[in-house]
Amino acid sequence: MNHPTPSYSGVVPPVVTPLHEDGSVDRASLERVVEHLLGGGVHGLFALGSSGETVYLTDEQRDEVLDVVVKTTAGQVPVIAGCIEPATQRVIQRVRAAESLGVDAVVTTAPFYTLVGPHEVERHFRAIHAATALPQLAYDIPVCVHVKLGVDLLVTLARDGVVVGVKDSSGDDVSFRQLVSEVSQDPALATFSALTGHEVVVDAMMLAGASGSVPGLANVDPAGYVRLHDACVSGDWATARVEQERITRLFRIVGAADPATTFGSTRGVGSFKTALALLGVIDSNAVSLPMRPLDQDETARVHDQLELAGLV
Amino acid sequence: MNHPTPSYSGVVPPVVTPLHEDGSVDRASLERVVEHLLGGGVHGLFALGSSGETVYLTDEQRDEVLDVVVKTTAGQVPVIAGCIEPATQRVIQRVRAAESLGVDAVVTTAPFYTLVGPHEVERHFRAIHAATALPQLAYDIPVCVHVKLGVDLLVTLARDGVVVGVKDSSGDDVSFRQLVSEVSQDPALATFSALTGHEVVVDAMMLAGASGSVPGLANVDPAGYVRLHDACVSGDWATARVEQERITRLFRIVGAADPATTFGSTRGVGSFKTALALLGVIDSNAVSLPMRPLDQDETARVHDQLELAGLV
Amino acid sequence: MNHPTPSYSGVVPPVVTPLHEDGSVDRASLERVVEHLLGGGVHGLFALGSSGETVYLTDEQRDEVLDVVVKTTAGQVPVIAGCIEPATQRVIQRVRAAESLGVDAVVTTAPFYTLVGPHEVERHFRAIHAATALPQLAYDIPVCVHVKLGVDLLVTLARDGVVVGVKDSSGDDVSFRQLVSEVSQDPALATFSALTGHEVVVDAMMLAGASGSVPGLANVDPAGYVRLHDACVSGDWATARVEQERITRLFRIVGAADPATTFGSTRGVGSFKTALALLGVIDSNAVSLPMRPLDQDETARVHDQLELAGLV
Amino acid sequence: MNHPTPSYSGVVPPVVTPLHEDGSVDRASLERVVEHLLGGGVHGLFALGSSGETVYLTDEQRDEVLDVVVKTTAGQVPVIAGCIEPATQRVIQRVRAAESLGVDAVVTTAPFYTLVGPHEVERHFRAIHAATALPQLAYDIPVCVHVKLGVDLLVTLARDGVVVGVKDSSGDDVSFRQLVSEVSQDPALATFSALTGHEVVVDAMMLAGASGSVPGLANVDPAGYVRLHDACVSGDWATARVEQERITRLFRIVGAADPATTFGSTRGVGSFKTALALLGVIDSNAVSLPMRPLDQDETARVHDQLELAGLV
Repeated sequence: MNHPTPSYSGVVPPVVTPLHEDGSVDRASLERVVEHLLGGGVHGLFALGSSGETVYLTDEQRDEVLDVVVKTTAGQVPVIAGCIEPATQRVIQRVRAAESLGVDAVVTTAPFYTLVGPHEVERHFRAIHAATALPQLAYDIPVCVHVKLGVDLLVTLARDGVVVGVKDSSGDDVSFRQLVSEVSQDPALATFSALTGHEVVVDAMMLAGASGSVPGLANVDPAGYVRLHDACVSGDWATARVEQERITRLFRIVGAADPATTFGSTRGVGSFKTALALLGVIDSNAVSLPMRPLDQDETARVHDQLELAGLV
Repeated sequence: MNHPTPSYSGVVPPVVTPLHEDGSVDRASLERVVEHLLGGGVHGLFALGSSGETVYLTDEQRDEVLDVVVKTTAGQVPVIAGCIEPATQRVIQRVRAAESLGVDAVVTTAPFYTLVGPHEVERHFRAIHAATALPQLAYDIPVCVHVKLGVDLLVTLARDGVVVGVKDSSGDDVSFRQLVSEVSQDPALATFSALTGHEVVVDAMMLAGASGSVPGLANVDPAGYVRLHDACVSGDWATARVEQERITRLFRIVGAADPATTFGSTRGVGSFKTALALLGVIDSNAVSLPMRPLDQDETARVHDQLELAGLV
Repeated sequence: MNHPTPSYSGVVPPVVTPLHEDGSVDRASLERVVEHLLGGGVHGLFALGSSGETVYLTDEQRDEVLDVVVKTTAGQVPVIAGCIEPATQRVIQRVRAAESLGVDAVVTTAPFYTLVGPHEVERHFRAIHAATALPQLAYDIPVCVHVKLGVDLLVTLARDGVVVGVKDSSGDDVSFRQLVSEVSQDPALATFSALTGHEVVVDAMMLAGASGSVPGLANVDPAGYVRLHDACVSGDWATARVEQERITRLFRIVGAADPATTFGSTRGVGSFKTALALLGVIDSNAVSLPMRPLDQDETARVHDQLELAGLV
Repeated sequence: MNHPTPSYSGVVPPVVTPLHEDGSVDRASLERVVEHLLGGGVHGLFALGSSGETVYLTDEQRDEVLDVVVKTTAGQVPVIAGCIEPATQRVIQRVRAAESLGVDAVVTTAPFYTLVGPHEVERHFRAIHAATALPQLAYDIPVCVHVKLGVDLLVTLARDGVVVGVKDSSGDDVSFRQLVSEVSQDPALATFSALTGHEVVVDAMMLAGASGSVPGLANVDPAGYVRLHDACVSGDWATARVEQERITRLFRIVGAADPATTFGSTRGVGSFKTALALLGVIDSNAVSLPMRPLDQDETARVHDQLELAGLV
């Protein structure tokens, strides 16, 4: 159960992508988001993840995002980049772009839209690995790609050096625990990074052996997540839990948007951006079509939660 | 129950995209596929659909496919083009490309990967419509996008001129029948095209009021599907059923690939391409990663079914 | 493609179970339902199906239902009885009761609640068959049991005499067509009964080779379904389609209940019972908990549809 | 975040139901299971849960199980009884039986097989509560009933006294954490019991604020789970994690059965029973149809894991 040096650990927020009202990337706001996160003490940045609206953006916009994040970070922490496309060849195109823009690792999902089984999924990750010298983290997000990455597959890919870690957004903590347990017993996997994507169970997953977390909500409260992580690492679980409880309440901002007229991504990304606008970090809470930005009433509800959490 | 002049009717195959072994588009083979389909008497062509491996191809390859299909068709039948991307902005990028390459209409799905509800889906189709003068057909394919387009939404979008038809690959014939029934009672929707994507129930769906079909298997046997369609249109349901039964048996080629090592798309697209290679229409049965081409034994099973169906 | 003598064919409505306001079975109303159906010319009766609220009823109530249906039918048509329980032993208990009450065949689903794979499903049907001399029809209803009965499994069970037919409520007409196609090519399966459970595609499924239908809506309009069936059998598909269209519109009664406060079964069974009460066949539109009966406004909407369909 | 006196806390195993080879309940073995669990120091017993094969058993067998468990326990710890049926009336029948046999509380799921929405689910739990003086725990097990109990619904039902706790087998630890967080902030809910059903994340869920656990695997190793629970309660999270890791490895016994010929319940219940037989607690590893018992090779694999875990 030793897990001494995972390659990627700590708090690695999936960076939101601020937009102007016309849908173009707001570079200045994005720079401020990166500074806000680095200022909070985060240990890495995940650009172009689901919270970064990656599948909404054109390739030009994606390149722009990576350019801003890499330059603003300036090597202070690792930058990992989502290369998220339905199938292999297009993912590799994005990996090439990520390479040329200077990221430290790529994050890839199972294929989506197309109908694949275990053999296709394995071939996908292996083909991407064969095409790049960059480390690859697997992004396990069945709610988006409708495929769950099994423990056995991940362990096999890890042993073969195909993936160096996983971002787990599967909601399946039983599977995550089994993965962590398998990995912890194999000295050859000592550097494997097991990152949880679930904002409200970071303390629990750290106790279970996670290397760190990739919480969308850390865009809003990076310092809180860093305090939580530090408490976990030092074994101060009582403090960790108190911090996690505060954060769990803050997570209610994802319920601010009217459920009768919004859904899933609109509610999550929309509320994170609205909070960042209220905090003065970004200029606008604009989101990509077909999402809509939170309106005035919804924004007021986000403000209330920020107040309760002591952030405004 | 009059449905006099749907804009798109008859047999509109989703054209496969032949590839060289190195993954590049095989233009010569694609030209031959188009000629094979036109020679079979089909009434339209659907380029860059799921059977056309659209989500596997780069934008450059997609442009190449549209270019070949439009030029080879040379106006003999309408060419409709899949513009299939996870979210609105990227779809509109593809619509722009399709416009410049001279297609007659675009085919679009609900958003995928991202988590959307009914409001986001409706906003998506409306935003695409607002961005183009080309007619838009909705592609209802929940098995890929994990959203079902409801009857009420489709009727609303049709009444507002946002969509001029639907390609139904939902497997939900109850819903399809209800849509056809609604449409047939509204004179303003007389030109709405209700196309079924299910190879083995074309006779049944034509009886139910479909305008036509978009059968992947028609790549292999276009003439058979045209005979089937003609029988339906002339009300000769007994003949239609016999033809459909023959075709239904031919559809067994999708079972040729070993189910222990292949899945979904590999089995479908892979078997269509293998059949076309056996028929001498295309040079190679190569498919995009992470699919794999059918091997020798699997190819032999496809050959057996072609023989049984009287195609070789 | 000969299918000369399926054991069970024609219109076989899943008989609703009228209840008193206190939840007890209303025997007199049930007798009138049976007479209403027989008077409409139906070819069989399916007691204790999903529309018969079978999983809501106690064993005593179920016995009462079978007793009334068998006695009132008095051998005029076959009575088949749902024996629907989560696992094998409990199903066999219900089969014993059905045997003693004089039904002609039993209808059984895959196991539910418990998590089963193909081997468990096959063992289940075989064990039930081994326990009774009554013919067994498989009820394919994945929306309730969350398992789809595959074509291969059904054909294997049919060849081994384990099942004599299927009631298909899977919504998967592609699979249904493939089953019918397989069965029609095997002379040993000439008596296999392929019954569709989907109210609005009976004409289409009859064209595809169905033996008959099990439409919940036939409780409301048995004569209409019998006319539809007769037209199909005589090859008069144009007449069939017109009758089906009328019925498809009538099916809108399942939309009468407020979607904000009702769901699935409440909307279906609730509207059928409300229609039967409006037609004077049953005394009350009471349904089992946790469903609720349709209220006055909802009932008015059912009445409107009955009027449009020419039933009141 | 005080949660002083949940009504049901600690380790509450879902008691397996030993069977003779002929399928009848093995009373003597069941007595020994109860003694084995009490000897391990468990804090309660959950009879007739999923691991107890409740949906496979006849009502007579279920009564027998409750009789043996209640009598053998003799008041040393609370006995809670699963009353698991598809709909309300049948659940209440089981509640009546449980009352007469002397259990301390009942455990009920959302309706299953039938199609229900939130209103039906809420009405279901309320109607059961209205019918009994026994406390009711909600069993959240979407993998079986295909409905997830939402945080808001559970909090509402808790505030109204309809449920006194939840057994969470949803696999959705995010939702579980949100529930615990809500409950912990409402002094009126101080006695609410939040029990996790997931064997391998008990330490994590206890850190997150769970009251206790209902682990199927505790049938095999009750003392291990009690040590784990005690470590959690005393805040010794390092010890808790070590114990949890050992148990997580032991959980591999559910992988002992051949995945090509077994599924879900067979693998779980089958391996627990096989382990108990190997430990000499029960006479036979027989399971209910349509499951099959583990064979010799599979049993050897269970034995290996018991050895690794230091249990034999």
